[in-house]
Amino acid sequence: MTPPESAPPPEPASDAGTAADLVITHCTALVHDASAGHGAHEGIAFVEDATVVVRDGRIEAVTTERVEVSAAEHIDARGQVAMPGLINCHTHSPMVTLRGIAEDLPVEEWFNEFVWPIESNLRERDVELGARLACAEMIRGGVTCFADHYFSMDTVAAVTAESGLRANLGQAFFSSQGADGLERSLDFALRHRGTAGGRITTSLAPHAPYTVDDADLAATARLAREHGLPVHLHAAENRDQTEASLARHGRTPIEVLAATGLLDTDLLIAHGTGITERDLPLLARAGGRIAVASAPRGYLRFAWPTTTPVRALRDLGIPVGLATDGAASNNSLDVWEAMALTGLAQKSAEGDPRWLTSRQALHHATLQSARAVGLGERIGSLAPGRRADIVLVDLTGPHTQPVHDLAATLVHSARSSDVRTTIVDGRVLMRDRELLTLDVPSVVREMNERMPVLTERGHGGRIQEYDT
Amino acid sequence: MTPPESAPPPEPASDAGTAADLVITHCTALVHDASAGHGAHEGIAFVEDATVVVRDGRIEAVTTERVEVSAAEHIDARGQVAMPGLINCHTHSPMVTLRGIAEDLPVEEWFNEFVWPIESNLRERDVELGARLACAEMIRGGVTCFADHYFSMDTVAAVTAESGLRANLGQAFFSSQGADGLERSLDFALRHRGTAGGRITTSLAPHAPYTVDDADLAATARLAREHGLPVHLHAAENRDQTEASLARHGRTPIEVLAATGLLDTDLLIAHGTGITERDLPLLARAGGRIAVASAPRGYLRFAWPTTTPVRALRDLGIPVGLATDGAASNNSLDVWEAMALTGLAQKSAEGDPRWLTSRQALHHATLQSARAVGLGERIGSLAPGRRADIVLVDLTGPHTQPVHDLAATLVHSARSSDVRTTIVDGRVLMRDRELLTLDVPSVVREMNERMPVLTERGHGGRIQEYDT
Repeated sequence: MTPPESAPPPEPASDAGTAADLVITHCTALVHDASAGHGAHEGIAFVEDATVVVRDGRIEAVTTERVEVSAAEHIDARGQVAMPGLINCHTHSPMVTLRGIAEDLPVEEWFNEFVWPIESNLRERDVELGARLACAEMIRGGVTCFADHYFSMDTVAAVTAESGLRANLGQAFFSSQGADGLERSLDFALRHRGTAGGRITTSLAPHAPYTVDDADLAATARLAREHGLPVHLHAAENRDQTEASLARHGRTPIEVLAATGLLDTDLLIAHGTGITERDLPLLARAGGRIAVASAPRGYLRFAWPTTTPVRALRDLGIPVGLATDGAASNNSLDVWEAMALTGLAQKSAEGDPRWLTSRQALHHATLQSARAVGLGERIGSLAPGRRADIVLVDLTGPHTQPVHDLAATLVHSARSSDVRTTIVDGRVLMRDRELLTLDVPSVVREMNERMPVLTERGHGGRIQEYDT
Repeated sequence: MTPPESAPPPEPASDAGTAADLVITHCTALVHDASAGHGAHEGIAFVEDATVVVRDGRIEAVTTERVEVSAAEHIDARGQVAMPGLINCHTHSPMVTLRGIAEDLPVEEWFNEFVWPIESNLRERDVELGARLACAEMIRGGVTCFADHYFSMDTVAAVTAESGLRANLGQAFFSSQGADGLERSLDFALRHRGTAGGRITTSLAPHAPYTVDDADLAATARLAREHGLPVHLHAAENRDQTEASLARHGRTPIEVLAATGLLDTDLLIAHGTGITERDLPLLARAGGRIAVASAPRGYLRFAWPTTTPVRALRDLGIPVGLATDGAASNNSLDVWEAMALTGLAQKSAEGDPRWLTSRQALHHATLQSARAVGLGERIGSLAPGRRADIVLVDLTGPHTQPVHDLAATLVHSARSSDVRTTIVDGRVLMRDRELLTLDVPSVVREMNERMPVLTERGHGGRIQEYDT
């Protein structure tokens, strides 16, 4: 019954005080070479036949030397790559419930005819089931951390704690909710930061400059600075929004962020495909740590004319993290696919096949994504002292052989389904594709029972109107 | 040891003469509704709780009635979709050996500095190992038929026979080979058509109008008509080729095909991203059955400015099949991914989120792909009388639940790794993800031993020069 990949150590630790929690042996480890910096290889390197030692939820060592360490758990990872877990830098996890419900539509109809009417029916229990299914999907896909921007976030925080995942969570609000929206977002952020053993961090989460007015954006910026909280919002999602903002206010969405003080906070901007040339100097001068999350599948699906301007952002030193957005627009929470599509979409958008190499894609998926969610010093790299958020990727399948260029194999040949083991804070959440913290069939059963009530649109209401 | 999905029938058939080969029960079957024609739904429908009966390698029935049929093999496919196996309409299967060897390069350098120098080292054994690995990858990815265009095709035919897959095979040639090239392509096509129990069909396979001169193309067209053979070639692969052809000959590649008589044959054109407005009337008037194979991943990778003009071709009634090209440019032979990317790339290229729905993508993947490889009457649909090329897709994973729109779930949420069972001509080639006809580890071992000799480029030779 015990699979060879996950055997107990040959001998029990004689001194429990010195036993590590987990030792992974015989893997190829993806590491970051700080000295290589932002060069052609983006500092990505591979260490063959490596051993990874995990103690107290942290990576203690990544070494090619034979280590004599007793450990509570030993994984023989022959034929597998150990890499930092993927980070979903912008999602609305409970929206998996609406996966596929509004297909082949422009974003206006998608919001106004389907998503926002249905979300007006949303109850805590729907959010709970959706979040649980989403966490299951992410763990299966090698995601160890996600930045979530949604409603009923107390519930999402509880599911995050239960699932074992790491997350940055923000309670979304619109100005149409009145003063209550921002207050609840702040209250959520203060109550939950540092919970789940430190796995949960929080952000203030205004929806977007087209749904939150300048006064509320400015108040958000003040509260962020006052409480040391980051901010996560949608901005310049597409060109139409930028043009509508210019027509109405004479300012781009990024100029609105600057004017309201949000560029002086630690700010995660979702999408940014509508960022223009005139925005770049403002982003360059920003007083806060700015990052952008790119979810390229949705931009193709909605036939937006541009994608996130990754090259221009890189020139400014702004990290771009990978994301899926919600499954109602992306059809999955597959960050692995987002990694491959980022490479392909960027080559195509720039008309340059040499741009956005596989190593660059891996850099976006690891350190840049960690920075984007405000955890640049804690996760995103298999380095001593970092939290042990690790995935093991099986490369023995026919579609990932032979290996001429391991970075290319990982980004463009491997799939999320090749992740065999997912580990967060040193705890194994999926072993040999088996989920250990969540029960999918029971979630799906109850979700389907509730679906007719949830998806009823006859009431004609909606939580908000999409009008850039 | 016997998994529940694949149990023997409860009682042996009392009359072997009436026993079916295979019965699949409790599946949701993807079928084509001929009456729906080329409408909004492209004739794709789903039959729930269906039974599929297979006899003598053919589909005998797809029914919702309880059938009392004894069968040599019974598959309980609860929670799974039965659909026609995917068809890879244009590949160079042995090139899996070069997967990832030449990344992030323009197509000229990819050909001239890597692929064509390395292919000058190619031996029969390399082709054999590559074809075997490719067949393993395709069976695992739910591909039941492929159109292959390469060298040493006697070897590929032998591997095809051994693998159990269906294929249309063509021995590629350049005019630089002299008269010998076309002769060998014809000899191969005549010797192999109808072999492997009818699973192998053949084509004449000139490489492309930029590597095969007009006299050889015209001779190919004459021989195709004389012998009743289809033709499979690259043409108008990208805009640069079309512009180079215009500059040199005053004709587009499609005009070259018209002038040499190839548009009067049953012709499969690979890629066609360089097809222009002026080509459309010629394609509309073509005397032969014309089809195009689209492999969208490579067009993004090489940063080509256009993709296959699927909408214009549809207006002409020209089927567009899905393809991966070789793994040296596509990084995988994942036709499932090609299906999703076709949807996304077409929406983006047309600037229209309503275009290329999931049902349209499934129509391309099934009947249009079958027509593209000349098997429009034999495969591509789960209909009585068609060959039993079937895949079973598991939709119980968290990433494919809930199901609001089964077509969208299949195209945009499911992955090739969700294929659990692959069946060709009624024979199970993969059962519960286990390959039954090919041994991957031994192939990979020998391939890696041979790799240093194969990939040596110090000789400075190449089989051909890429110069559009």
